Amino acid sequence: MAKEKKFVESITAMEDDFAQWYTDVVKKAELMDYTSVKGCMVFKPAGYAIWELIQRQLDDRFKATGVENVYLPMFIPESLLQKEKDHVEGFAPEVAWVTKGGLNDLTEKLCVRPTSETLFCDFYSNEIESYRDLPKVYNQWCSVVRWEKETRPFLRSREFLWQEGHTAHATAEDAQERTILMLNTYAQFCEDVLAIPVIKGRKTDKEKFAGAEATYTIEALMHDGKALQSGTSHNFGDGFAKAFGIQYTDKDNTLKYVHQTSWGVTTRLIGAVIMVHGDNSGLVLPPMIAPTQVMIVPIMQKKEGVLEKAAWLKDKLSNFRVKVDDTDKSPGWKFSEQEMRGIPVRIEIGPKDIEANKAVIVRRDTREKIECSLDNIEVKVGEVLKTMQKEMLERARAHRDEHTFVATNYEEFKDAVANKPGFIKAMWCGDEACEIKIKEDTTATSRCMPFEQEQITDTCVCCGKPARKMVYWGKAY
Amino acid sequence: MAKEKKFVESITAMEDDFAQWYTDVVKKAELMDYTSVKGCMVFKPAGYAIWELIQRQLDDRFKATGVENVYLPMFIPESLLQKEKDHVEGFAPEVAWVTKGGLNDLTEKLCVRPTSETLFCDFYSNEIESYRDLPKVYNQWCSVVRWEKETRPFLRSREFLWQEGHTAHATAEDAQERTILMLNTYAQFCEDVLAIPVIKGRKTDKEKFAGAEATYTIEALMHDGKALQSGTSHNFGDGFAKAFGIQYTDKDNTLKYVHQTSWGVTTRLIGAVIMVHGDNSGLVLPPMIAPTQVMIVPIMQKKEGVLEKAAWLKDKLSNFRVKVDDTDKSPGWKFSEQEMRGIPVRIEIGPKDIEANKAVIVRRDTREKIECSLDNIEVKVGEVLKTMQKEMLERARAHRDEHTFVATNYEEFKDAVANKPGFIKAMWCGDEACEIKIKEDTTATSRCMPFEQEQITDTCVCCGKPARKMVYWGKAY
Repeated sequence: MAKEKKFVESITAMEDDFAQWYTDVVKKAELMDYTSVKGCMVFKPAGYAIWELIQRQLDDRFKATGVENVYLPMFIPESLLQKEKDHVEGFAPEVAWVTKGGLNDLTEKLCVRPTSETLFCDFYSNEIESYRDLPKVYNQWCSVVRWEKETRPFLRSREFLWQEGHTAHATAEDAQERTILMLNTYAQFCEDVLAIPVIKGRKTDKEKFAGAEATYTIEALMHDGKALQSGTSHNFGDGFAKAFGIQYTDKDNTLKYVHQTSWGVTTRLIGAVIMVHGDNSGLVLPPMIAPTQVMIVPIMQKKEGVLEKAAWLKDKLSNFRVKVDDTDKSPGWKFSEQEMRGIPVRIEIGPKDIEANKAVIVRRDTREKIECSLDNIEVKVGEVLKTMQKEMLERARAHRDEHTFVATNYEEFKDAVANKPGFIKAMWCGDEACEIKIKEDTTATSRCMPFEQEQITDTCVCCGKPARKMVYWGKAY
Repeated sequence: MAKEKKFVESITAMEDDFAQWYTDVVKKAELMDYTSVKGCMVFKPAGYAIWELIQRQLDDRFKATGVENVYLPMFIPESLLQKEKDHVEGFAPEVAWVTKGGLNDLTEKLCVRPTSETLFCDFYSNEIESYRDLPKVYNQWCSVVRWEKETRPFLRSREFLWQEGHTAHATAEDAQERTILMLNTYAQFCEDVLAIPVIKGRKTDKEKFAGAEATYTIEALMHDGKALQSGTSHNFGDGFAKAFGIQYTDKDNTLKYVHQTSWGVTTRLIGAVIMVHGDNSGLVLPPMIAPTQVMIVPIMQKKEGVLEKAAWLKDKLSNFRVKVDDTDKSPGWKFSEQEMRGIPVRIEIGPKDIEANKAVIVRRDTREKIECSLDNIEVKVGEVLKTMQKEMLERARAHRDEHTFVATNYEEFKDAVANKPGFIKAMWCGDEACEIKIKEDTTATSRCMPFEQEQITDTCVCCGKPARKMVYWGKAY
């Protein structure tokens, strides 16, 4: 019993130290671990299985909008990376360089892709000739490398997994439409599947992607009141097309430049799930991305018939991702372990339950216990999982709304950043100097100019000049 | 019509130049292309979609045997690569080295993984403590890099996609069992899904993996009579465990070394599909890995009701991967294009068919035309696809058997290599000198010592000394 208690006690409470709580959960739920390769992580089975579920469900949504998957090389020749000026300035300081291949020095060094705009542009410049070749709506699932100094599991590491979509279109309107379509796809996915509500908006010029005309973002609020940029979609206009010479012959027989977009989400989404839904017992997984949705725990499992009934129950629940924990650990230990791993539903079944033809369903998020007849338990479990998925989103939305504040002047703004963890809505004049001052004064950054604008005041919260843009501000990961 | 003919004519006939035919098919079926990155390829949508289908179906089979997916870093520090002597000797000459990260030189250079035995060993040395932690049966889907000089689409490139399984077991028996289980999984997958029959066997010591105690292989025969190593499974014994100190406390409380395996297949399997099933009209895809299984071609599509009926038919066939080609190309052009892409079944439907409540199903492999009532066409299409899958395997097996020869002495052997493209079964004394001599004299290599042995003669086909091992020999990719 002492040992069992320790399993749970060894997690730091999130109220005491949120960062340490996060690290503890990642470690104890066996999602990820450090390796001998500095700054690089290993995705353990429980962590990778979540990524597989995210990947499959997001990929289905991509394909429903006409996306096709491809795979391009992981190396980018230096000369290719340098073709678009803003882009190389943004990425060159943080790439890893391959300088030797086999036993020889390379004549031109290759960077390990930090992102693949340049490769896709090079590819498209050969692929696209006529308006008939457009649009190209390609995506790849892969890993990328950015030589970060500080790393944190899922949130920032030197190598991470992601998807990157890269598209080419005949017109600026088509490119803009795809940019917003993918942002909406991400937002809907976060709500429906991850149970995470997001703010959709546009990044300020200071925060936009290197080489983009406009960057759009979805921003989520973590349990500690910090923001997490959870996905981005960029409209490049024809900037890259001009740098790479990507032209097509239009119906009117004239040569035109294509208009491009790119968009991506990363394994950071798993970090968001942990920080939005977790509690002091560990991880809480939304049913739709839980590798194990239901864990059956036999009680007094050595008694005749208990394990058999548990196996029968598993069969009955085969529409779900279900397991039986028949290890020789005590039920209490099993409960703690499964709570740590965030398994949405556990079902307790012992001799007395079997006699009464019932079992006890326990929800991970609310701990609610539901007695249920074995006859129609598969229906009940389906309902419980559905309700849990829905209520997790509702709770996350309520938490976000409770932690979204309005600042009408700079004193209120500074007070909010200092004392009220969360989003701050405030007006901005559009001047980068104010963004810089706000960051220096408070460490808060502009998260986005939301699509849903409100006119809070008519002056900039920082400089007092006329302002028409409302911005979400906050401390961020 | 001239243009249409050209589409097909521009493929080299396989009888004239098999290598050129292969390149033509890869290019014209739009599977893959070269890039500005020397030796690296791009998987285009049609090629990557085949890989996705292979991946999903193989992954399901892995998971059914208890495999769990993980993801380890793409970089290996030099010191880690060097821990197992044979392994580093095998791989060091062909790896790419990262020597700079961001703006700084690295203190220790990192190789881009050519394979991940060393990383998994390092990981397992921290993960495994007790017999309770065993077995570990992990796999990852990723890309690896080997600095090859000569490259060919799907068969050999500097970066390629694969899966690599890495397992650790308590006993030598468990490791051997897993090694063979995975070889059998690969063999069954090739037959069931790719319609490619394979020879299962063990590699000679000369041909085994760097660091392995034993390497097992599946060998397939291409249409031109050359062999393709299509998957391998290695038993490492405790060699890596000793080099990396991977020990566990057994039930008897003593420290023991684990026994390990690894196994992998690559995108080379797509090369095998092309070279086993293709013909002079292009690719022929087994239905189970065809991204589009059925293409509906409306005839006289401008006539009222034709496109509507095609759309209705697509709906009716929604259990299959089905598309309608309603582009403004002529039917003849569409037929050629779909044959090139290897789409298993096309369905022609025009005004007369609609009037007669029927359509024409055309098989890609045999060109057989089947008239079918629209009422139960979804049943018929299912049957045709199933039959095609089965007959493709049968044809490939017949071709392989017809191109498998026996050599009882060295003259027969040399004659066979020179004049009869295919496998040669012949006895071998076990001496590496004979393998080397055979390769020098004939360019044929030992493919494997098959599990199904036959005693052809009792002397080595090369040196005439006593021999008990029958070996499959052949020229290989």
